[in-house]
Amino acid sequence: MKIITISREFGSGGRELGKRLADAMGITCYDQQIIEMIAEKEQLDKTYVANKSERSISAFYPTTIARGFYRPNYAMIQSAQIMASEHELIKKIASEGNCIIVGRAADVILADMQPFSIFVCADDETKLQRCRARADSDEKLTDKELLRKCCEIDKRRAAYRKMFTGKKWGEASGYHLCVNTSGKEIKQLVPGILEYIQNWISEE
Amino acid sequence: MKIITISREFGSGGRELGKRLADAMGITCYDQQIIEMIAEKEQLDKTYVANKSERSISAFYPTTIARGFYRPNYAMIQSAQIMASEHELIKKIASEGNCIIVGRAADVILADMQPFSIFVCADDETKLQRCRARADSDEKLTDKELLRKCCEIDKRRAAYRKMFTGKKWGEASGYHLCVNTSGKEIKQLVPGILEYIQNWISEE
Repeated sequence: MKIITISREFGSGGRELGKRLADAMGITCYDQQIIEMIAEKEQLDKTYVANKSERSISAFYPTTIARGFYRPNYAMIQSAQIMASEHELIKKIASEGNCIIVGRAADVILADMQPFSIFVCADDETKLQRCRARADSDEKLTDKELLRKCCEIDKRRAAYRKMFTGKKWGEASGYHLCVNTSGKEIKQLVPGILEYIQNWISEE
Repeated sequence: MKIITISREFGSGGRELGKRLADAMGITCYDQQIIEMIAEKEQLDKTYVANKSERSISAFYPTTIARGFYRPNYAMIQSAQIMASEHELIKKIASEGNCIIVGRAADVILADMQPFSIFVCADDETKLQRCRARADSDEKLTDKELLRKCCEIDKRRAAYRKMFTGKKWGEASGYHLCVNTSGKEIKQLVPGILEYIQNWISEE
């Protein structure tokens, strides 16, 4: 059995890579579905869950928490609940069979199952192009604003990962394979990655 | 024309990967030869050149240099000379045709030629095993000492790279592809990397 996890910079094409790899391997790729499943289970709005997911729970703690008594507020409790629900769901999905999971620090959550972990990154120009191509028609951000948004989302993802592991987000040694999609079409990169994964798995 | 550069953690198998990729592609892999060629050109001892190569030149500067007058010493001048000679040689090699260059921050030195850059890393256990397998019979270091040696060499390589680029050594976004060889035979990883590079190049 093999689980593949994909961590990705916002706009790098990680989601498309997950989908294409899953199609080529005949397995399921989980991405937004995880949010939808949690929203349904917890009876919460999808956008609200998406916003809380991959956000460091530590962001809800005041800096003084270590120094004295502090009563956690509702937002903190709900964030913790969503996170616990997400972990439980990711473990359930992985236990059911081969699959690809995009984001949500799944490589760390599933560490015991030794998933094959991929990190996807790209340069600013490529990320901008990718964001523009998929943006809603009412997206009126300037390039600078859009890049700032990418950067903020990545910072949140990095912080979320840091809660569970000593490894830095985006540092090669924390993954099995890191691919840089700068200036490339994702579909051109799939055959090599597929071959790499298949040889990796066959050797286990 | 395509140039491939390999940066690698000490003991991760980067040198073997370079050799195997070059054999599969029918091109030359430059590694120790660069040291030998410089030693010959500069009429210096091979070990001396190897020791100076990939060592940050800043290590020879006293910390007070920015504050006052300082006369560079002989070691500094010779280091700078070896570095300049190395850069010149790497550019010459790359201009002559397809090749693979291992180490020496070749990806940064050859940035104008847009080489395909690979970073190779591995976990401590794999690095120890690889070092033990190739160590001289008189190598009597304990695991802890051997890991410290790996770490010191990597620190030097990181500092050398940092002189030329803002990107951190080992950070995925600084390379086209990062492979983690932990627990694996290098030969099993070659076909996937080869396929990946060939698709990358064919698209250019």
